[in-house]
Amino acid sequence: MTADPSPRPQASGTSITNADPRPHVVVLGAGFAGLAAVRSLRGTDVRVTLVDRHSYSTFQPLLYQVATGALNPGDITYGARGFAAHTGASFRKGEVTTIDPEARTVSLDVGPDLHYDYLVIANGVTTNYFGVPGAAEHAFPIYTRAEALAVRDRMTSYLDHIAATGEARGASVVIVGGGATGVEMAGTLAELRNTVLPDRYPELDPAEVNVVLVEMTDKILPPFAPKLREYAAQQLRRRGVELRLESAVKEVRPDSVLLADGTELSAQMTIWATGVAAHERVKSWGLPQGRGGRIVVGGDLRVPEHPEILVAGDIGVIDDDPLPQLAQPAIQMGQHAARTIAAVVAGEPTTRFRYKDKGTMATIGRGSAVADIAHGPKLVGVLAWLTWMLVHIFALLGNRNRVFVTLGLAFRYLAQRRGQIVVGDDPG
Amino acid sequence: MTADPSPRPQASGTSITNADPRPHVVVLGAGFAGLAAVRSLRGTDVRVTLVDRHSYSTFQPLLYQVATGALNPGDITYGARGFAAHTGASFRKGEVTTIDPEARTVSLDVGPDLHYDYLVIANGVTTNYFGVPGAAEHAFPIYTRAEALAVRDRMTSYLDHIAATGEARGASVVIVGGGATGVEMAGTLAELRNTVLPDRYPELDPAEVNVVLVEMTDKILPPFAPKLREYAAQQLRRRGVELRLESAVKEVRPDSVLLADGTELSAQMTIWATGVAAHERVKSWGLPQGRGGRIVVGGDLRVPEHPEILVAGDIGVIDDDPLPQLAQPAIQMGQHAARTIAAVVAGEPTTRFRYKDKGTMATIGRGSAVADIAHGPKLVGVLAWLTWMLVHIFALLGNRNRVFVTLGLAFRYLAQRRGQIVVGDDPG
Repeated sequence: MTADPSPRPQASGTSITNADPRPHVVVLGAGFAGLAAVRSLRGTDVRVTLVDRHSYSTFQPLLYQVATGALNPGDITYGARGFAAHTGASFRKGEVTTIDPEARTVSLDVGPDLHYDYLVIANGVTTNYFGVPGAAEHAFPIYTRAEALAVRDRMTSYLDHIAATGEARGASVVIVGGGATGVEMAGTLAELRNTVLPDRYPELDPAEVNVVLVEMTDKILPPFAPKLREYAAQQLRRRGVELRLESAVKEVRPDSVLLADGTELSAQMTIWATGVAAHERVKSWGLPQGRGGRIVVGGDLRVPEHPEILVAGDIGVIDDDPLPQLAQPAIQMGQHAARTIAAVVAGEPTTRFRYKDKGTMATIGRGSAVADIAHGPKLVGVLAWLTWMLVHIFALLGNRNRVFVTLGLAFRYLAQRRGQIVVGDDPG
Repeated sequence: MTADPSPRPQASGTSITNADPRPHVVVLGAGFAGLAAVRSLRGTDVRVTLVDRHSYSTFQPLLYQVATGALNPGDITYGARGFAAHTGASFRKGEVTTIDPEARTVSLDVGPDLHYDYLVIANGVTTNYFGVPGAAEHAFPIYTRAEALAVRDRMTSYLDHIAATGEARGASVVIVGGGATGVEMAGTLAELRNTVLPDRYPELDPAEVNVVLVEMTDKILPPFAPKLREYAAQQLRRRGVELRLESAVKEVRPDSVLLADGTELSAQMTIWATGVAAHERVKSWGLPQGRGGRIVVGGDLRVPEHPEILVAGDIGVIDDDPLPQLAQPAIQMGQHAARTIAAVVAGEPTTRFRYKDKGTMATIGRGSAVADIAHGPKLVGVLAWLTWMLVHIFALLGNRNRVFVTLGLAFRYLAQRRGQIVVGDDPG
């Protein structure tokens, strides 16, 4: 590989010194896939620039704990610059506006374009409202740190409002989507309603605070084994979650959710946890797209028409055969993208990506989780819950976050009724 | 004392049941003074309603650690409803708009008026810009949680911006005010510039990132013993803080600070730490006001014209003889206000408040602080720093916050260069 063929004058002010003769790898996105790619590129003779629109990486599997006030936003985010410094990469903050595969440049909303020799597209996907009217306007996703904080802030300020005015003695939360995020939110909110609410809001009636989980298909947690799905549903019901299966959402209104069968569910807050799709912007990049707008790549994660472009994580799909949009596939794809680049740089043949399924987990509440370990046991209850805790704590970046999340979850689940909640500000 | 003379119909929806025959004490403000008052009223046969515009109490002495990314906002704030639940009080969220001493009512921005038998005004003060042109528009105070977050977010996003665009290789922060807050911010920022910045922003030149502390008088930390003041100044200079004494600020501009002598200091961010004054709104309450708009009370903290109204904390001044606007005077006044109410309820004479000065402390940076202990030693260096740490951790509310702050400060000061910073979002 050659170095940048034509160092562009407008790039002179950036951190990326074009005097470096090594091939330049630009990695878009500081999520699971992007970070895994940067880390795995360490042994390869390339210079790496990591790009993200935030200056931190978010540990998405614990966002619902931020939304429900057990953890602080800083406990599950990790500074992208610290990560870059420790892996020998550069960091550039900015949102990707355009990719020009012909010129091999990436344009950001701020600063000069980046020229690449290899590009790893790993900047993920965004909430998919599936065109449901009112969803984008009135429902709250929990996909970014700011969104999790918005849920938290909206929830406390609404409860404080009705407690102050006496306008209502209760409120309903409708969660749309019976995947892991929906189940975790529903279980946690129901538990808070049962334990913390009576202590903190004696003005309100817990019986009038409803937590409803709406799922379009006939089951929650579809990828899990039937035994685990049944356990999860039973645990949710035991906590007082109203489960509505085979219920498609027709419209989201400011204070209700309208189902396809005509039922109107009262909803002072609607949480949207149904799925993700590629950003609209991807269309303009001139790359082949499959279901949900995901970029279609070959088995070595390269785009066939542009072999210097690789895709990893939720935004990519191999031969249009989608992997689950979870941390493990993203991490493994990120690692494989680095492997492919290393092979190309060394003039060796690339290899085909094989996903090693390690299983999947979801928490319902205190002492209650399901863990579907691939080629291993199907765990429920306390054992699954402790496994979930350990796996997530180890997967976090940085010892600070590991320690803070361990303690934050310990305070949540040990203190229960008297536990301290991280209280939000008014929505800005 | 009698119960509410005329239960008002619009109050029926609130948390405050007017059927309770005990005298109703309304405490405005969940700061040091208000919380101390609520806590100290526990043995008295009254019902208590705590009011605050936020649903949490903020531990202001550590806000600068939030502004500089060592602590999360939730680590130094404590849910007001949790506090109320544990002390047998009710909580009402709302901002005080009017106090009507004749009708004995408090109006809030949300919900029905509160009727009181006794009122403890402890809702503090607000940033005082002393009429300096541009200060309110362009300078950043650090007096609330939202303000501390704004400083953090603005700082990271500005550095990321210049790193991305290459427009500048440095930036200047001017801190106005040489009291404890100003000294702590200047020392902490200079230390971050020296240790973390080179690691995280290799694009920038630490020598071009200036930290300037501007003070109008000829000394920093005016209430401290001369030996301690000299130590603090020397420690600031050793960390590379540019100290500008006897420098009054004439104007704050978007990118600079103009001094009275005509000097224009470059300032990509100006932090305002000069002092506080009562909110403008207090004027409309018809209560006697002294210097800085503080409400003038008698020795037992009652307003002479309205003995059922008591004042505690920064917003009050006894016989126009001001106490320092710090945590200790506020806490002791809050306790004394409760004592006065207990005496009146019991038909006993009230006593005069006497401030027990325990001394004062300020931190410059890692292993460096000054502690001016009243009737005790004057400490500098590591010993003062450990004392500061212990005193502040014990003063926090709740074990969760104690543990999290201990660890947050430990990670900051032990990890130093490689320490994780809580990275901000873009300013909203």
